[in-house]
Amino acid sequence: MELALLYSGGKDSSLAAVLLDRFYDVRCVTGSFGITDDWRHAERAADALGFPFERVALEESVAREAVDRMHEDGYPRNGIQHVHEHALEAIAALDVDAIADGTRRDDRVPTVSRAQAQSLEDRHDVDYLAPLSGFGRHAVDRLVEETFEVETGPSAEIAKADYEDELRALLAETHGEAAIAEVFPDHEQTYVRGRTG
Amino acid sequence: MELALLYSGGKDSSLAAVLLDRFYDVRCVTGSFGITDDWRHAERAADALGFPFERVALEESVAREAVDRMHEDGYPRNGIQHVHEHALEAIAALDVDAIADGTRRDDRVPTVSRAQAQSLEDRHDVDYLAPLSGFGRHAVDRLVEETFEVETGPSAEIAKADYEDELRALLAETHGEAAIAEVFPDHEQTYVRGRTG
Repeated sequence: MELALLYSGGKDSSLAAVLLDRFYDVRCVTGSFGITDDWRHAERAADALGFPFERVALEESVAREAVDRMHEDGYPRNGIQHVHEHALEAIAALDVDAIADGTRRDDRVPTVSRAQAQSLEDRHDVDYLAPLSGFGRHAVDRLVEETFEVETGPSAEIAKADYEDELRALLAETHGEAAIAEVFPDHEQTYVRGRTG
Repeated sequence: MELALLYSGGKDSSLAAVLLDRFYDVRCVTGSFGITDDWRHAERAADALGFPFERVALEESVAREAVDRMHEDGYPRNGIQHVHEHALEAIAALDVDAIADGTRRDDRVPTVSRAQAQSLEDRHDVDYLAPLSGFGRHAVDRLVEETFEVETGPSAEIAKADYEDELRALLAETHGEAAIAEVFPDHEQTYVRGRTG
């Protein structure tokens, strides 16, 4: 069965890929607004793990709505959620049996409610899977450590390909450089370089 | 890493075992009140799938509380939930790194909230995993069909080893045979006989 996994090159979506690999033909798919080439980082990580990769185009209007919302809120949560939902719609439109993402039990954002999951499945005739939604942070960290070589650092410095990099760029362009520090608190990011051993 | 999976011999907990097998040394564990020998069915299923098996003793007082509650309610939900929580406590006390169960996204009972999961983890210093909680019914059915030879039928006739059989027996003993039909609606059960192909 063909599965499209929303993929960033980070530890969560990489672990989701390995978990689903037992049952599906997993394709790592990264959404990109065409603002930067950051999706290349995800392509490289997928390559290192041995999964096929695909880039899907996201609507720039959605990125604009998201950064306006973030700037207004002063925090990124609702904007990120908006983009994540758009990206799930985009991969659900691919010719696959199932779609998935790397959301964990303890994630505050993005979240996909049971009703949203059901709606995605019904409208696109796919299964939506969140294979890490029953795993807490500690369990994920242990499995990641066992499974991958990773690189960890502040979110501004780690080359990852979640929406954050493109949204940062667009935010700087539309609301000025200073808006980045206002909206995005410093946090640790992880990028997967390959498998252990 | 050692993992104790709450196991019934049904399709959900069997699929959870296979999913977790990629990362953990999975032991299938069935809780039993010592009322019937139904746990033997789970042992046979674990055997057929090639997983080690263990029976853990549950407190008969918990079964009594559960059937009294079910009889009072006229439906099994709260009683089953009470027993499931007790069984999770019992396997969390084993010498393992992680515990798990087979709850699915669409299950109404048993459910384990994020707060309950965190509390289990903190008190017992284990990870609690619900590997199917991000999978809907349709996805689980497709994976089960691909993975197992199963037997399906009315819940009263399929030899499975979830708590239901022992609770039915105790309910009949304490509240009379007729109480069974009052409390338990007919539903389909599945028992796993082995792997496909």
